[in-house]
Amino acid sequence: MTATPPRPSAPRPSAAGIAPRARAAGPVDADVIRADAFAVALPVGRWSTDPAVVDAHRLDRSGWIPDGRPLGVAFAREVADVQAVLRVAVARGVPVTVRGAGTGLAGGAAAAPGGVVLDLAGMNRIRELSVDDAVAVVEPGVITADLDAAAREAGLCYAPDPASAAISTIGGNIATNAGGLRCAKYGVTRESVLGLDVVLADGELISTGRRTVKGVAGYDLTGLFVGSEGTLGVVVGATVRLRPVPRATVTLAAFFDTVAAAVDAVTALGAAGIVPAVAELLDARTVRAVDAATGSDLADHGEVFLLVQTDGSGAAEEADAAEAVLATRARLVRRSADAATAETLLAARRAALPALERLGRVLIEDIAVPRGRLAQAAARVAEIGAATGVEIFTLAHAADGNLHPIIVVDPAEPEIPRRAWAAAEQIFALALELGGTVTGEHGVGVLKRRWLATELGSRSHDLQRQVRRVFDPTGILNPGRAL
Amino acid sequence: MTATPPRPSAPRPSAAGIAPRARAAGPVDADVIRADAFAVALPVGRWSTDPAVVDAHRLDRSGWIPDGRPLGVAFAREVADVQAVLRVAVARGVPVTVRGAGTGLAGGAAAAPGGVVLDLAGMNRIRELSVDDAVAVVEPGVITADLDAAAREAGLCYAPDPASAAISTIGGNIATNAGGLRCAKYGVTRESVLGLDVVLADGELISTGRRTVKGVAGYDLTGLFVGSEGTLGVVVGATVRLRPVPRATVTLAAFFDTVAAAVDAVTALGAAGIVPAVAELLDARTVRAVDAATGSDLADHGEVFLLVQTDGSGAAEEADAAEAVLATRARLVRRSADAATAETLLAARRAALPALERLGRVLIEDIAVPRGRLAQAAARVAEIGAATGVEIFTLAHAADGNLHPIIVVDPAEPEIPRRAWAAAEQIFALALELGGTVTGEHGVGVLKRRWLATELGSRSHDLQRQVRRVFDPTGILNPGRAL
Repeated sequence: MTATPPRPSAPRPSAAGIAPRARAAGPVDADVIRADAFAVALPVGRWSTDPAVVDAHRLDRSGWIPDGRPLGVAFAREVADVQAVLRVAVARGVPVTVRGAGTGLAGGAAAAPGGVVLDLAGMNRIRELSVDDAVAVVEPGVITADLDAAAREAGLCYAPDPASAAISTIGGNIATNAGGLRCAKYGVTRESVLGLDVVLADGELISTGRRTVKGVAGYDLTGLFVGSEGTLGVVVGATVRLRPVPRATVTLAAFFDTVAAAVDAVTALGAAGIVPAVAELLDARTVRAVDAATGSDLADHGEVFLLVQTDGSGAAEEADAAEAVLATRARLVRRSADAATAETLLAARRAALPALERLGRVLIEDIAVPRGRLAQAAARVAEIGAATGVEIFTLAHAADGNLHPIIVVDPAEPEIPRRAWAAAEQIFALALELGGTVTGEHGVGVLKRRWLATELGSRSHDLQRQVRRVFDPTGILNPGRAL
Repeated sequence: MTATPPRPSAPRPSAAGIAPRARAAGPVDADVIRADAFAVALPVGRWSTDPAVVDAHRLDRSGWIPDGRPLGVAFAREVADVQAVLRVAVARGVPVTVRGAGTGLAGGAAAAPGGVVLDLAGMNRIRELSVDDAVAVVEPGVITADLDAAAREAGLCYAPDPASAAISTIGGNIATNAGGLRCAKYGVTRESVLGLDVVLADGELISTGRRTVKGVAGYDLTGLFVGSEGTLGVVVGATVRLRPVPRATVTLAAFFDTVAAAVDAVTALGAAGIVPAVAELLDARTVRAVDAATGSDLADHGEVFLLVQTDGSGAAEEADAAEAVLATRARLVRRSADAATAETLLAARRAALPALERLGRVLIEDIAVPRGRLAQAAARVAEIGAATGVEIFTLAHAADGNLHPIIVVDPAEPEIPRRAWAAAEQIFALALELGGTVTGEHGVGVLKRRWLATELGSRSHDLQRQVRRVFDPTGILNPGRAL
């Protein structure tokens, strides 16, 4: 992922820390001294303060731009590099922001000013892939799709499939407990992580969990680290569960007049004992955007698009049953006869985000609601768009109750307008009102932090902060993020 | 589950706590005063110090008998009762042992001397069962099988099925993160718990998690409470995930000459892309015990018995594939044509534990190993039996790598002999040597506590103890258990 950057060319004081006491180091000098401590602690070529390198590693994909810049970027290649960075960071009180591929959507990997970016993209080895144990042991910088591809060569697969799987890392997926399209059947990242190797804030390496499918010795620290957004320790290795590749997959595309009708059909699938591997919904605005971008004529079949996949030994039989359920509710149902047809049906879903990105700058929200409230949530999101005058397009992982209202901002706007942020805030409030969450799979990061105490309750929030202090007593790990 | 016991008849001091300072209360007086504080704090009929009642509530099914007796038993009917007990317990420094049905196998619910047993069996209402949201909201004392039955009336089911499901409670299942037969496909209790209501040590009620399938706001406190064996708080409510009832189930029984051959067949199922809902293995000694107990002739077909179930839309097709895989490796494969035949095939598995209980007192161990090491683990367990002169019978959840070596002690022995404990210790050591865990699904309780630091590592163990102190700073919750 990351080419090793050149050794920093910034001047290095030859004896940092022994400057005469009489002349207190100013802020610039202090930063130089701090940066030097990292340079010295790491092997040659694994530290950079080059402004271009720093700028290339200080943001994620949330659109959020922190004030100030980090000191530099550490490019870890091995566990010892991570330990070295954390030991210096603790000793000097320097904030550490851990980074995988930088695909986060909540600002969790947007670097703290004056801190260090700890880039794990170079720790990208699949250390082991065991067919007998149905596990892989990976470094955090492995691209998720690469792990899945390696597993498939061995007849297995890695089930979690965030939409970013082709570009995001396992470490980032673990940090946010990433979801994806197949969660309703196969669970989120948490359900596929058996154990972790973690460097604690003080540099000590621990292991959590195990290589077994089951195990209840002690508290579930693995689950605590998954989704902790870089605030409890640095994941330097993961033992993940692999599953058999489904024996077959069948894809159905159904077109409806309304979101409510499509959601009703998804509910009816469950009532019929059908467990779809995928149930992706595009609302009417999104369907029209896809048509406009690709020249397709989806909207002629029905305004709302629902993609359903069944998989496993019973994929065909389950698809028969699903087709029957959908047919009584949809205007049209199409079924893949082969891989090529399936690809055509999938194309609309795949095209959705690129189609919206053509229209302007996108802010991707990520609420989840109880499944029975999905239609209501989608309708209310549309109302919020109308009331605030903001363009909102909605995709949903329909079987999970997870909606992605996507706010599209006119590219002519110099910055994200106030009404877009206002719409986002109303969407968060809606999620909580409906008994849901402000983030189903993207994480809290910076953008949803203000809502966290409201969602959690003040005592639970306080307990979580105390847990954070157990793991990071000096507060160097991703300060100002998540909690 | 529990009839409300009579109001305690023990003498109650009329003005506890105002005894003259000059005469320090002796240990008996202090206990009476403490017990009175609980009696006063609870509604009439919810507290007992009757020795017969106390004795009926102080042990679990582990066979472990703590020294000394608890002060009394609190029979909670509502959240306020739990809060009242904990407030008094914190104020008086009295240990609290939470109890569901008392079916634990590790001593986690064996009461601390001088403490209070907090019995939640009376909090057994299913508060809500929502088909639209596919969730149930339950009190902790609900019997697991009762929840599943209620869900099935609505076309859904509760997937986790510990062998004790007919007698154990959801609260106890949550406390131990109970497993069961269907875990390989549907996950352990953790995977079905979306959110919890928990009374903290100081009596405050919090909620964790949510009613949605996905959600990543804050740390996974729900996962932290699941499996925490009564040490972090008292679960007074749970929102659990329900799933569609599988559209079909097919049962296969296969007979093998060796455990290794049976395990190899289970591995081959996975390699063929088959995900059995159940894969239960009985070793040769267990098969012979079943034959002796029931008059069956299983051992004539093959010494080792493997029960496989496939379920879902593709159950029949998956069973065809499984049968083909098993047929090349087994001496005989039988397949259920209907529910009655399935019941016959299941009977052998069902009969196993009762058959062993006829032979003597049983100690049920619970190790899990990486799946590729299951055959090796079973062989080594047999060697340990031979070397220590102890009768060990092995059942396994074969697709999970979870073994239950069952030590049977001659009923003529006055107490559990030293060699039986020695065999257990060797089994624990074996689990760790093979990269596994000393407890796959039963919990640490008292019996495996000595092994915990070895399995976790000292730093991880220490972190867990610090987390425990965050939730229970005065150490009243199940002291001496789990960690």
